[in-house]
Amino acid sequence: MNAKKLEASGKKIIHMEVGEPDYPPPENVRKALSKVFESRQYHYSETKGIAKLRTAIAQKWGNRVKADQVIVTPGGRFAVFAAISSLLSTGDELICIEPAWPAYRECASFVGSTTNILKTTLEEEWNPDTGKLEDMIKCSTKMIALNYPNNPTGRVLNKKIIDKIVSLAKDHSIYLLSDEVYSDYAFNGFTSLLDYGYDKSIIISSFSKGHAMTGFRVGYAIAEENIINKMAKVQATGLTSVAEPMQYAALAAIEESTSENAKRIKRRLEIICNKLQEMSLQFVEPDGAMYVYPKLSDGKRDVTIIRKALDLGVAIAPGSGFGDCYSEFIRISACQTEDQLEKGMDLLKTAVSSY
Amino acid sequence: MNAKKLEASGKKIIHMEVGEPDYPPPENVRKALSKVFESRQYHYSETKGIAKLRTAIAQKWGNRVKADQVIVTPGGRFAVFAAISSLLSTGDELICIEPAWPAYRECASFVGSTTNILKTTLEEEWNPDTGKLEDMIKCSTKMIALNYPNNPTGRVLNKKIIDKIVSLAKDHSIYLLSDEVYSDYAFNGFTSLLDYGYDKSIIISSFSKGHAMTGFRVGYAIAEENIINKMAKVQATGLTSVAEPMQYAALAAIEESTSENAKRIKRRLEIICNKLQEMSLQFVEPDGAMYVYPKLSDGKRDVTIIRKALDLGVAIAPGSGFGDCYSEFIRISACQTEDQLEKGMDLLKTAVSSY
Repeated sequence: MNAKKLEASGKKIIHMEVGEPDYPPPENVRKALSKVFESRQYHYSETKGIAKLRTAIAQKWGNRVKADQVIVTPGGRFAVFAAISSLLSTGDELICIEPAWPAYRECASFVGSTTNILKTTLEEEWNPDTGKLEDMIKCSTKMIALNYPNNPTGRVLNKKIIDKIVSLAKDHSIYLLSDEVYSDYAFNGFTSLLDYGYDKSIIISSFSKGHAMTGFRVGYAIAEENIINKMAKVQATGLTSVAEPMQYAALAAIEESTSENAKRIKRRLEIICNKLQEMSLQFVEPDGAMYVYPKLSDGKRDVTIIRKALDLGVAIAPGSGFGDCYSEFIRISACQTEDQLEKGMDLLKTAVSSY
Repeated sequence: MNAKKLEASGKKIIHMEVGEPDYPPPENVRKALSKVFESRQYHYSETKGIAKLRTAIAQKWGNRVKADQVIVTPGGRFAVFAAISSLLSTGDELICIEPAWPAYRECASFVGSTTNILKTTLEEEWNPDTGKLEDMIKCSTKMIALNYPNNPTGRVLNKKIIDKIVSLAKDHSIYLLSDEVYSDYAFNGFTSLLDYGYDKSIIISSFSKGHAMTGFRVGYAIAEENIINKMAKVQATGLTSVAEPMQYAALAAIEESTSENAKRIKRRLEIICNKLQEMSLQFVEPDGAMYVYPKLSDGKRDVTIIRKALDLGVAIAPGSGFGDCYSEFIRISACQTEDQLEKGMDLLKTAVSSY
């Protein structure tokens, strides 16, 4: 029985499985929403998004890009979809560093492309082996997907590794898709791939996580104009334009700082980490994002623990949702209050020890 | 120079090119929007759309379908995209009856499918020749796209023709994609393809036209559950879920009648038709939708007339935007006030006579 069915039957569940902030969007989003009707902000908009929002995004990125290098999409996910489906086709290959959000390989599969997996391990502290990455590159390799701060591990790569990846991409003329939707939750600094100035890079970002606006479905991509134009063609084919009221909500949100949200998530992750230490589970302390990705001990399997935990009243995501080699892992999300997290972790502890 | 640039330079343009109502959405959409923040209606929703909206849609259709046979999409366009990309693949063929909205063939092209065009003519009063349609069907024909009330002609097919098309589809096990987004604007009655109970039909509808909610991007599809599930997979891959605030806006709108909007558009189309008669241009009086599609006389070309008209201050859509054989046609949209339409038609008359 899954979490929703259990809840429907009256059971209380602590949701530590979802990557969706429990706190509200910035307060001025409320005002923006209440103005939409009066201001008639509910029409078809430009395919790439309303000019005001694209300009505001360019400004947020220190005007290192022009508004025409930005496309606003219904969530970061559609930006990933548009990038992959406009740049890759049947027979092309995508390299994905796992564990990772499954969207990259799902989108590649949609367009008939193959995904080659570079596995990373807890022992390597989730750092990709760039030697292995180099060996994986073939003529058919068209894109490498990067997702840092990483979902599910929280890893942020050090400069040396990024330097090497960018250098490999340049040498082989490979697109770099850098999904940076968790960049507002980078606790020890973060360098966007944009800073490398590589003309075949696509930066993905979103209002979903940093501004707690998941359900508004507003994300965006930054790239060279020729890439953005190809992505815009996919957007025009698939959905005409992004809901205009949601773009105005994002425009209101973009002025607002996300630092309080970051502090909140950092504190919560510390609580989770402390509890995991008490449980003697191995994990790498996250540099960012909203998750901890611990290893279960003694060959325990994620689905078994998750079932036990759910029976006790806490929902956790299986590690195997982020790659085929991770059924000994679970992903714990910090999208609950500290109080709830404490309770949830205690329930998880009971589930683990009763295995 | 296009309409937007001319406007930016200070020129007043009457917009008779766009298929976007100039009147507002139902009043209770205002209330729905102002409640979103307070009610926390801004989260990821089910892939197929929130249950309340799917249930309300099923009810609107007289409960002839279950909520699980409905998928809510970001606009009718994404419903078309999801249907075509989940049911067709490389080498498959789509039959499209033209003139038509170009989305069907654009989506087919996106997935590597071929579109075969069944041309209709003014002389046939835009009715498809079902004998020709039968001859066009091959083993590779997987889908026929229907769009009635038609954009751009306003044609609604009579029962005899639909009977024959459904019968052909059944005989050859072909999907019927019936885009009925203009069904609220059918002035002499309209029979949905749903009434035929054909298990390979997909009905597309939307809040964009009937409820004047283009920029909210909420549409939907109705089909057998196995088809809806395939479309839901495309939606999950491409964009997770539809913006939840927009779904609540649609839920508020669905209770509201669209009959006043239909009356308004009917009156406006009569004005356009009267003016076209004065100009002695040939056209078929529309049964529905928001457009008239007249033929220019004496081998005049759409783009030339449109340029002249724009110089005079009225924007019109070229006939060739709806199929390769229609450069002698223009599409006139009724999405302006009666007063503006009168003025716009007078300007068009000047443009045509000065050719």
